[in-house]
Amino acid sequence: MTFTSEPHPGVRPPPAATDGFVLNHTMLRVKDPVVSLGFYTHVFGMVLLRKLDFPEMRFSLFFLAKLNDTDQVPEETGARTGWTFSQRGILELTHNWGTEDQADFAYHDGNTQPQGFGHICFAVPDLVKAVKWLDDNGVEYVKRPEQGKMKNVAFVKDPDGYWIEIVQPELNANLGQPSPDQAC
Amino acid sequence: MTFTSEPHPGVRPPPAATDGFVLNHTMLRVKDPVVSLGFYTHVFGMVLLRKLDFPEMRFSLFFLAKLNDTDQVPEETGARTGWTFSQRGILELTHNWGTEDQADFAYHDGNTQPQGFGHICFAVPDLVKAVKWLDDNGVEYVKRPEQGKMKNVAFVKDPDGYWIEIVQPELNANLGQPSPDQAC
Repeated sequence: MTFTSEPHPGVRPPPAATDGFVLNHTMLRVKDPVVSLGFYTHVFGMVLLRKLDFPEMRFSLFFLAKLNDTDQVPEETGARTGWTFSQRGILELTHNWGTEDQADFAYHDGNTQPQGFGHICFAVPDLVKAVKWLDDNGVEYVKRPEQGKMKNVAFVKDPDGYWIEIVQPELNANLGQPSPDQAC
Repeated sequence: MTFTSEPHPGVRPPPAATDGFVLNHTMLRVKDPVVSLGFYTHVFGMVLLRKLDFPEMRFSLFFLAKLNDTDQVPEETGARTGWTFSQRGILELTHNWGTEDQADFAYHDGNTQPQGFGHICFAVPDLVKAVKWLDDNGVEYVKRPEQGKMKNVAFVKDPDGYWIEIVQPELNANLGQPSPDQAC
């Protein structure tokens, strides 16, 4: 890897002490894992790599990945757990037992106040086909591609209301670059 | 890829319509990008792949990756933007202009009420060395590895207070598996 960061105040070169670091996963709390697993495995085609139960603390963790054809997932459980923690792009869902039975329970999506976390994002090979697929599955939109200033970007909601951005990478090559109307 | 999801209610097989989907990035809002870029590029060795400015809407986006030796990052800006959107494990930081000048401004980390987002996680090759590196850089801990029930896991805070989990994958091969004290 010879790429050097784009220049910006604050940016520093990667220290040798960080060699081998991997941005492994993002964790979101979910109210009902049956609903969330159905959504992420069907609508986004993820697989459940590992479920980890912590009965003493009354929670379970679900590690999901969207695999590609070259991923070699170990079948043996311990090796698979280690593999899961060494990959990029894992989604961890945390279920605190019992929330699914509380009618008025809901997690906070981070986009209303107080703000913080914004969204996760899936890249897709074909945005038009992906939108049809999401529509076929009754997925709720925050913003359809044709709405707003960013025409090649969609946002949908997962079952807890967390936002998921949908992009087709090559359609966004000019995003944020000077354009006639600065609308990108 | 021949791996089949672990069985659990809700889990379904990946549909062909999701072929090529990639879990690309996680977006977090940050108060001061100079501080956050210094933190993520130095402490975690990430590189700034792209900065995208949206002056009309008064925000900027920063796309960061922890690269490995085999990553081939295109030098040309448009190609690099497309590449960025096609990878796994990208961190997107959003800066709404002006927040860095507001003394009492802070984002919500998702772990106090209202809860939602939990953390991001870096895998590291050597947890002991990583902890020394984090200590050398004065990083604030939520939980050191020796604290709490999960002895091989640490949590630190980024400059906005977002939690970052630190794991050494092979130390967690038995996590969540039956153990004598169920403490995992």
